[in-house]
Amino acid sequence: MPDARLQQYEEIAAFLRTAIRDGEYAPGDSIPSEAELCRRFDSARGTVRQAIALLRNEGLISSGQGRRSRVLGTVPSQSFDVVISFTQWCISSGITPGQETQWMARRPADAREAAALELPDRAPVVSIFRLRLMNGEPAMVERLNYPIEVGQHLLSFDPDSGSIYQRLLDCGVDINYSTRTIDAVGANAEDAELLQVPEGTPLLRVRRRAFTSEGTPIEASDDRYLPDKASFTLNSIRGNPSAVSMMVSGELSR
Amino acid sequence: MPDARLQQYEEIAAFLRTAIRDGEYAPGDSIPSEAELCRRFDSARGTVRQAIALLRNEGLISSGQGRRSRVLGTVPSQSFDVVISFTQWCISSGITPGQETQWMARRPADAREAAALELPDRAPVVSIFRLRLMNGEPAMVERLNYPIEVGQHLLSFDPDSGSIYQRLLDCGVDINYSTRTIDAVGANAEDAELLQVPEGTPLLRVRRRAFTSEGTPIEASDDRYLPDKASFTLNSIRGNPSAVSMMVSGELSR
Repeated sequence: MPDARLQQYEEIAAFLRTAIRDGEYAPGDSIPSEAELCRRFDSARGTVRQAIALLRNEGLISSGQGRRSRVLGTVPSQSFDVVISFTQWCISSGITPGQETQWMARRPADAREAAALELPDRAPVVSIFRLRLMNGEPAMVERLNYPIEVGQHLLSFDPDSGSIYQRLLDCGVDINYSTRTIDAVGANAEDAELLQVPEGTPLLRVRRRAFTSEGTPIEASDDRYLPDKASFTLNSIRGNPSAVSMMVSGELSR
Repeated sequence: MPDARLQQYEEIAAFLRTAIRDGEYAPGDSIPSEAELCRRFDSARGTVRQAIALLRNEGLISSGQGRRSRVLGTVPSQSFDVVISFTQWCISSGITPGQETQWMARRPADAREAAALELPDRAPVVSIFRLRLMNGEPAMVERLNYPIEVGQHLLSFDPDSGSIYQRLLDCGVDINYSTRTIDAVGANAEDAELLQVPEGTPLLRVRRRAFTSEGTPIEASDDRYLPDKASFTLNSIRGNPSAVSMMVSGELSR
């Protein structure tokens, strides 16, 4: 049943997304023509084009450039919940998530944390340090930091009981968008002990900042994955600016 | 001057993209209302919404959800040229690119290369192995593989003279889209020697496959960056499926 809250181009995009995911249109296949989609949805050509542009930007279909768009090799797109929540990500991947909390604390932010959360130096934050498990095996070391207004919802929460993200949503916290920075880092002594690997083992690091719809930072995190547990995949299509940027880091970026 | 090849929604998106990049709309600012954009471009509301959906999917603006969209912290979106070409990426970042070719060879594909290029085992490929430099310093180890039909354009090319991507474009090769997988890996002996770091040093690995618009693979590459030289950054916005997926790797994905 169509969702009344969706605009028509979103409905058309959802229809195509589902058909691609279900294999009705396989990689290499053309999607239906604009004219056909206009007929099927009784909609204007502009609306159909809007739906197609959306799928192209999600990396699901090729740029037509005068031809019909084709379905690309499947890189499943991920919802915002999955971006923010390790628990949701595991469940969507058919993995049982788990956690072993090392500690939770209310403490003053250090300079780096304060900068990430746009708080004054030594402002109070709530910090949580957990080992995360995939199917019972050590997979990721998670360091979460929240401004006190947000973190107060967690001090009374058992961080071994599951998803902190869900807890924050339940408390009415507005989590609207996030920025992630992905790089590689060697395991420090603490990481190494928890992940049961030698110090210096290469880890895939994901640093995330999450924001309200007003642009106020409400989370700054540092997740370090064993590289045999997670990787990132993306499609890029000629003519469509990529939403992911490889950035120059360190001294060179100054 | 408007580009006659662009559709109107693309023109509107380009206008907003440029205004954001030039700081006319700063992070946190609202973009103009739909009504205002309709007036300014003498266009239908559907067209304006299409432009806004495009920018949202590029991670440039927030999801409005009844409010006006706001400009997010600037993650510069990157063109397809920059995605494919280290040379282009350096230039766009204000860095002088360089290369020291270790070898170029015509040789039979091993099983992994054949699979990535969808060729029969031991089909002939052209392989190039280069150390890449940023401002004269070792930064990345690059392993490129091409099917012979594409690679033949390179056998007569001096790989120390610059961009292989530009060479392929000049030869009329159709490079339409790419898939990248990002993870972390330790430097092997060869990587370590070229990058002048100890073996096992964490490197940011980017494996790329590039395709024609028909979906034929024409390149399979493996780039390994020193992590103090490059990282990836992306925005994700509630309500917009992310074009980048974190994937379960290794045994767990089977």
